[in-house]
Amino acid sequence: MASIKPLQDRIIVKRFESEEKTASGIFIPDSAKEKPMEGEVIAVGPGRTYDNGNKMELTVKVGDRVLFAKYAGTEIKFDGQDYLIMREDDILGVVTK
Amino acid sequence: MASIKPLQDRIIVKRFESEEKTASGIFIPDSAKEKPMEGEVIAVGPGRTYDNGNKMELTVKVGDRVLFAKYAGTEIKFDGQDYLIMREDDILGVVTK
Amino acid sequence: MASIKPLQDRIIVKRFESEEKTASGIFIPDSAKEKPMEGEVIAVGPGRTYDNGNKMELTVKVGDRVLFAKYAGTEIKFDGQDYLIMREDDILGVVTK
Amino acid sequence: MASIKPLQDRIIVKRFESEEKTASGIFIPDSAKEKPMEGEVIAVGPGRTYDNGNKMELTVKVGDRVLFAKYAGTEIKFDGQDYLIMREDDILGVVTK
Amino acid sequence: MASIKPLQDRIIVKRFESEEKTASGIFIPDSAKEKPMEGEVIAVGPGRTYDNGNKMELTVKVGDRVLFAKYAGTEIKFDGQDYLIMREDDILGVVTK
Amino acid sequence: MASIKPLQDRIIVKRFESEEKTASGIFIPDSAKEKPMEGEVIAVGPGRTYDNGNKMELTVKVGDRVLFAKYAGTEIKFDGQDYLIMREDDILGVVTK
Amino acid sequence: MASIKPLQDRIIVKRFESEEKTASGIFIPDSAKEKPMEGEVIAVGPGRTYDNGNKMELTVKVGDRVLFAKYAGTEIKFDGQDYLIMREDDILGVVTK
Repeated sequence: MASIKPLQDRIIVKRFESEEKTASGIFIPDSAKEKPMEGEVIAVGPGRTYDNGNKMELTVKVGDRVLFAKYAGTEIKFDGQDYLIMREDDILGVVTK
Repeated sequence: MASIKPLQDRIIVKRFESEEKTASGIFIPDSAKEKPMEGEVIAVGPGRTYDNGNKMELTVKVGDRVLFAKYAGTEIKFDGQDYLIMREDDILGVVTK
Repeated sequence: MASIKPLQDRIIVKRFESEEKTASGIFIPDSAKEKPMEGEVIAVGPGRTYDNGNKMELTVKVGDRVLFAKYAGTEIKFDGQDYLIMREDDILGVVTK
Repeated sequence: MASIKPLQDRIIVKRFESEEKTASGIFIPDSAKEKPMEGEVIAVGPGRTYDNGNKMELTVKVGDRVLFAKYAGTEIKFDGQDYLIMREDDILGVVTK
Repeated sequence: MASIKPLQDRIIVKRFESEEKTASGIFIPDSAKEKPMEGEVIAVGPGRTYDNGNKMELTVKVGDRVLFAKYAGTEIKFDGQDYLIMREDDILGVVTK
Repeated sequence: MASIKPLQDRIIVKRFESEEKTASGIFIPDSAKEKPMEGEVIAVGPGRTYDNGNKMELTVKVGDRVLFAKYAGTEIKFDGQDYLIMREDDILGVVTK
Repeated sequence: MASIKPLQDRIIVKRFESEEKTASGIFIPDSAKEKPMEGEVIAVGPGRTYDNGNKMELTVKVGDRVLFAKYAGTEIKFDGQDYLIMREDDILGVVTK
């Protein structure tokens, strides 16, 4: 199966599905659904190389559950799936158990 | 319980509740409530690593009471709670006893 | 009494009260009052540390009378008092006797 | 046949054709066609030389299948063909088999 | 008498009065008066210290007659007088006899 | 005959004439003519000297056929001729035989 | 006679007069006159000193005939004459015989 290798400090995130129902069980129409600001890291780039030659590894790992701003990154469709490609700097935090 | 680990120079703040009543005891409707510019630090990132390899630790600590501009940071909801994720540079000052 | 410790190159200023009357003694309504561009320094941060590790101390001191642009800094209310938090670079000059 | 040699960190991409029909076989009029965010790398520049003299080679290769934002790069027509010229930094990821 | 000490690379300028009359002797109403782009340097800052520790002295001196763009600097009123506070980089040139 | 020597990393380009007729032979009115994104390099600057003293020679040569974005550079008229003056960084690619 | 000494990397240019008549001898009203993008260098600054202490001399000389963008620089009136003060980087090229 083809996969995507992100470049430099970019990562690929699969956004979690938005809640189907409110806490009290009412169905939410698509148009009113909030875009979740959470997702799982699917792939990470090799890290960024700066003009002074220094290379900065990424800290997030594949499988991490991450938080990001609502409109962070670029939405792409690949093999029928929706993904987000963003820079590590767009990640607000990693959810730890 | 899951928790959020902020990245780089980001911190997580729990904004204080806005005043329910005016000084003279009048109830304030939600729509008129001022967003407090104060809150408590819940978690701090490891600090920022610059492209020259230097690493800058953060000065604010968990538990610090901090002041920040009204629209600083990104609002997120996590485990049903509202938090703010911002960079340390968004903190205007720390309240000391 | 709680006090505010500014971070990095930030300082806290108490803006002087605007003139109640014109030079010729006419009362000025609040709405027409000019925001004074002068105030007293209440607290100063430790100075700014740059990404190359160099640290730059601040030159203004607590108690200095300073001039600043009309809309410089962020207005905050703390313990019922109004203050301005700004960066030292927002200070146009120090008034010397 | 004349060809184009991109400069510095620029690359030339041939955008894939947009789908003629929907998954369920309905013809898509040109005006409604989504601009594919995928294409093949046709030519790569020598890499970027920075003001400190360091030179950064490119990581994408001729023949790579790449993903990019919808409006990335500059559209040019050359020898009757449409191409996109963009910087490597506009490439979101490389599709690997 | 109190005076103002500018910080870093700032200078204080007293703008020359605009012409009362046209060359042919006609009085110019205030509203139509051009803001002169000339003035005298009243005070100079100590110079700018950069993040690499280098300090850059200023080249303009107190008493210099200088040219500046119409809207350069910040207008302040001090002891009933109008002054302009600007950075040395806002000075277009020095008028020499 | 007078000629123009570009400074630093600037180059002078003579834009190719836009097509008089469509592929099928229909005359194109001036107003509808596409601005060609191709031209010939007429003169090149000495290259750019950076603040660290490093000097970067230009890679394009006089006589090169180059591609550039539609609105790149500044249009000037000199000795009755129209030219474009742009920085080398505005050049998307060089056409090689 | 007083003269103007430009600071840092600034130069003073006397813009050439715009054509009075079209090539076919028709008088051009002021409002329709194109602002020439050519002029003569009247004075040059000492060159720019960067924050790393390096100093960059200017390459244009007094008396050079130069080309610049239509709206480059700041227009000033001095001793009844109109001049342009601009940075050397605003100069597109030098006209050589």
